[in-house]
Amino acid sequence: MKNLLQNIPDQLPEELFETLIKNKNIHIERIVSKGHSSPKGGWYDQDQNEWVLVLKGAARLAFEDGSEVSMGSGDSLEIPAHVKHKVVWTDPEEETVWVGVHYM
Amino acid sequence: MKNLLQNIPDQLPEELFETLIKNKNIHIERIVSKGHSSPKGGWYDQDQNEWVLVLKGAARLAFEDGSEVSMGSGDSLEIPAHVKHKVVWTDPEEETVWVGVHYM
Repeated sequence: MKNLLQNIPDQLPEELFETLIKNKNIHIERIVSKGHSSPKGGWYDQDQNEWVLVLKGAARLAFEDGSEVSMGSGDSLEIPAHVKHKVVWTDPEEETVWVGVHYM
Repeated sequence: MKNLLQNIPDQLPEELFETLIKNKNIHIERIVSKGHSSPKGGWYDQDQNEWVLVLKGAARLAFEDGSEVSMGSGDSLEIPAHVKHKVVWTDPEEETVWVGVHYM
């Protein structure tokens, strides 16, 4: 058993990506952000679909069509493959803990 | 966007299972329990692997080998296909909200 709200490093110079499950069909990861956003100018353009869930914290995602979505605790979102998106803001005051499920 | 901690019915005569994502490789569901446990005498014996996460609440799982696991907020667990298990207890005082990811 693994608690996703615990075992968070005191310092997070970079966003923390941690694989929980990975096989040929699926990749589940925990992501911990604290004030991080996607690398400047970079869009995520993924070959797999992604389902994301915010366990705690707060974040804002942007999409190539100009729309933005604010996410908080319990919010989940489906991002189809090749829908370009980026994280434009995460709460700098507390850790934002995400689960990302990548699937074909 | 869907918040998994909201839109919970006031009354839960049965455990609530709700599909969030489903295709040939993956099935993601939200489960809401309140004092429910698995049907008496029944073990879950699943053809797919399952990864479970407790978003809030508390639960206890039992396995055919006699072991038990208590889960609370943030706890995640991988249950391989055909590992027989059941939910022996969930908190009767508050909703337990789970995410289950079934995958091959």
